[in-house]
Amino acid sequence: MNDYHFKLGKFQGHFVWHKHPDTDETFLVLEGEMMIVFRDGKVILKAGEMFVVPKGVEHKPFAERECKIMLVEPAGTINTGDAGGDMTVEDDVWI
Amino acid sequence: MNDYHFKLGKFQGHFVWHKHPDTDETFLVLEGEMMIVFRDGKVILKAGEMFVVPKGVEHKPFAERECKIMLVEPAGTINTGDAGGDMTVEDDVWI
Repeated sequence: MNDYHFKLGKFQGHFVWHKHPDTDETFLVLEGEMMIVFRDGKVILKAGEMFVVPKGVEHKPFAERECKIMLVEPAGTINTGDAGGDMTVEDDVWI
Repeated sequence: MNDYHFKLGKFQGHFVWHKHPDTDETFLVLEGEMMIVFRDGKVILKAGEMFVVPKGVEHKPFAERECKIMLVEPAGTINTGDAGGDMTVEDDVWI
């Protein structure tokens, strides 16, 4: 919508530590359960729960079992933020 | 997130015809079922389904039974868009 994208994804295991210097990032869990680890705490999100990670805050998503999520963020936001690396995926892949 | 709000709401019956001249508007149905009527068609949304109404497109939400939804739209977006009237509610009420 407008210049924002809704991105569907699934992941399992440890994601990389990263931050998005220019934008907040919203996680909505569709199936399963995930954790977002911060340098000073963590949140656990179950299906139907949502969390907004503030701009610039380092975080590391983790899911013990496969978890399906929807992200809401500005078009062009890269999944690994400032971290890069093997887990970076191409932005703007439509399904 | 950023300058966008996630708004939780419930409604039943016919909403007013309106449009949002300056923004798209995203509907996500949380519980129940709703219809968005357009001048040239309609969509039916069930729980877990999402639809983006493009900027400037006239639409009229309708729910036969109470329906719980989440809206995603820029902060300050008024529920009745350009229509006004009795169904207009105050923006920016946090829960």
